[in-house]
Amino acid sequence: MSGAIVDRVWKAASIRMVGDGISAGDLFAAQREVTRWEQWYPFWAKRGDEYEALAREAVARGRRLSAGELFWQACMAYHYAQFVWFHDPPTRDAGQRRKVELYREAAPFFDPPAERFDLPFDGFTIPGYLRVPRGGAGRAPVVVLLGGLESTKEESYLFENLCLRRGMATCAFDGPGQGEMYFQVKLRGDFNRFTSAVVDWLATRPEVDTGRLGVLGRSLGGFYAVQSAAHDPRFKACVAWGVLYDLSYYDDMHEPTKSGFAFVAGYDDARKAAPYLKQTVNLSGQAEQVRGAVYALHGGQDDLIPPAQVDQLRKDLRQNPHATFDIPKDGDHCCHNLYHVVRP
Amino acid sequence: MSGAIVDRVWKAASIRMVGDGISAGDLFAAQREVTRWEQWYPFWAKRGDEYEALAREAVARGRRLSAGELFWQACMAYHYAQFVWFHDPPTRDAGQRRKVELYREAAPFFDPPAERFDLPFDGFTIPGYLRVPRGGAGRAPVVVLLGGLESTKEESYLFENLCLRRGMATCAFDGPGQGEMYFQVKLRGDFNRFTSAVVDWLATRPEVDTGRLGVLGRSLGGFYAVQSAAHDPRFKACVAWGVLYDLSYYDDMHEPTKSGFAFVAGYDDARKAAPYLKQTVNLSGQAEQVRGAVYALHGGQDDLIPPAQVDQLRKDLRQNPHATFDIPKDGDHCCHNLYHVVRP
Repeated sequence: MSGAIVDRVWKAASIRMVGDGISAGDLFAAQREVTRWEQWYPFWAKRGDEYEALAREAVARGRRLSAGELFWQACMAYHYAQFVWFHDPPTRDAGQRRKVELYREAAPFFDPPAERFDLPFDGFTIPGYLRVPRGGAGRAPVVVLLGGLESTKEESYLFENLCLRRGMATCAFDGPGQGEMYFQVKLRGDFNRFTSAVVDWLATRPEVDTGRLGVLGRSLGGFYAVQSAAHDPRFKACVAWGVLYDLSYYDDMHEPTKSGFAFVAGYDDARKAAPYLKQTVNLSGQAEQVRGAVYALHGGQDDLIPPAQVDQLRKDLRQNPHATFDIPKDGDHCCHNLYHVVRP
Repeated sequence: MSGAIVDRVWKAASIRMVGDGISAGDLFAAQREVTRWEQWYPFWAKRGDEYEALAREAVARGRRLSAGELFWQACMAYHYAQFVWFHDPPTRDAGQRRKVELYREAAPFFDPPAERFDLPFDGFTIPGYLRVPRGGAGRAPVVVLLGGLESTKEESYLFENLCLRRGMATCAFDGPGQGEMYFQVKLRGDFNRFTSAVVDWLATRPEVDTGRLGVLGRSLGGFYAVQSAAHDPRFKACVAWGVLYDLSYYDDMHEPTKSGFAFVAGYDDARKAAPYLKQTVNLSGQAEQVRGAVYALHGGQDDLIPPAQVDQLRKDLRQNPHATFDIPKDGDHCCHNLYHVVRP
């Protein structure tokens, strides 16, 4: 069982890990050394601690850019330490908090820096980061980046850089059930209200132009992106980087994804979580409301989300003249296809 | 034999490939699909053609940054197609030329762009690229980047970006036996004269300040870097990213590295090349001449270059008060250590 989980995580996550910033050296070392699931967290936590020490050394020597990159490497190591570590919540929570702290330390060193915000909403506090491209004339278009089941606002740094280089500001936050917000509120059916609250705040910021606004989400975040765009017409463009329409296939999911959904919804029993998840995560009646442009990218070989999900979304968007579906048959999530992320 | 070469190339090159810009998706696909050495070149050439097509599409749509990245991805795919493909020179040469052409197309789209130069010297033409950081006040310090046995001026793009973000201009060129120059002149003992010719040219450029000049080379390039710094006091700093002192261990080298050295020296027989290589690639009497700062980074687990090589260099530099040796015992070439590349 323990070895099987390792195999499954490697299969599902190794490319993504490098894409999100884990070095190939660390990845290959882990593939050699981590043969039992119990070794996973300690391996990455150790790397995280090492990068943190290097980051502090860089700070002491006044090397700001390198300090930022090293803190962020440390953050990524802790992110993947706690990644799908659902069976042991105290350890997972500790890793999560370390990740958050390390990103906080990295943020001011980024170029451009990431500005932290903590937004009061409905009795909760929404945590996030805004980055604004340097040297632009006038207000920048802005894209809101949504995490998924196991990605959070800290994970989009490299992708943000792509957007920033193209003149777009980026805003990433944790919604219900994600990252820091998990400690306040679990997965629920109105993620879009949190997204809209963030947009309300963005509208007050002079650096960005919410008249040119997009939303992008990956995996479960793709669901949130479409949902957010459906309920908030201020989104001129929506990117579903991976299409998740509903959780009708929940019972057939593999571990650890299945337990993961239950976990972020606040259940400790995957079976008991099923009715709530199936009811809550469902675009039916919502997707057809999207008026802005939609770009949906989905891997033809995606073995986590079945293709029927894409068909459902396509059906609901058949009246939308600006919906584009891109389903590369070799199905690796190819960042290079993603610069479509608009200036609408 | 064919399978053994594949294994050896994977072992030696896979981390470096990702570090230099090959996507993890392509790498893992190749590791699945390329089981015989004969499949290596066709696999990467096909990827290269695909990225080129995407790049042309991006150009047509006016997406300059993405076009640059895609042409560069195509270039990298061809670079690794011909990588250590020494047994079949016509195919290798074709891949080399494709790589060069694709980089030429990518260069103007980079941010900052890479300016091509073709410098007449000694009856040859030295080809290279200069990139100058944007928005700097005054003339930028400049670092000359040297390739090694199997790296060329096209391979340092990501590393250049690190330097550029730190305010340094970068200049990469092919010297004797490397990349484009291989077709004009093979490996020879006076690489430093070519480096100095490039510095002469840099000194005429108003954007850069050759009063703050560094040189960095990787692997065999580490040898060239020390050699160049030994003969040209204008180099205030020298980085040997991997220490190669001499080829006294040539007879014990594995394939395909051994044939590679013979190949770039113009020999088709590795054994016959031995005396020439041992005589030509040797820092003895040169390293001790380096007056500027030296930073030598060498992997404790490096299994291509024996540790005795590091000891030799250390011995020759014992009078140099600014020599730093950094030998991480886990020995992966860690870019993060490399921002030392100085503003001297």
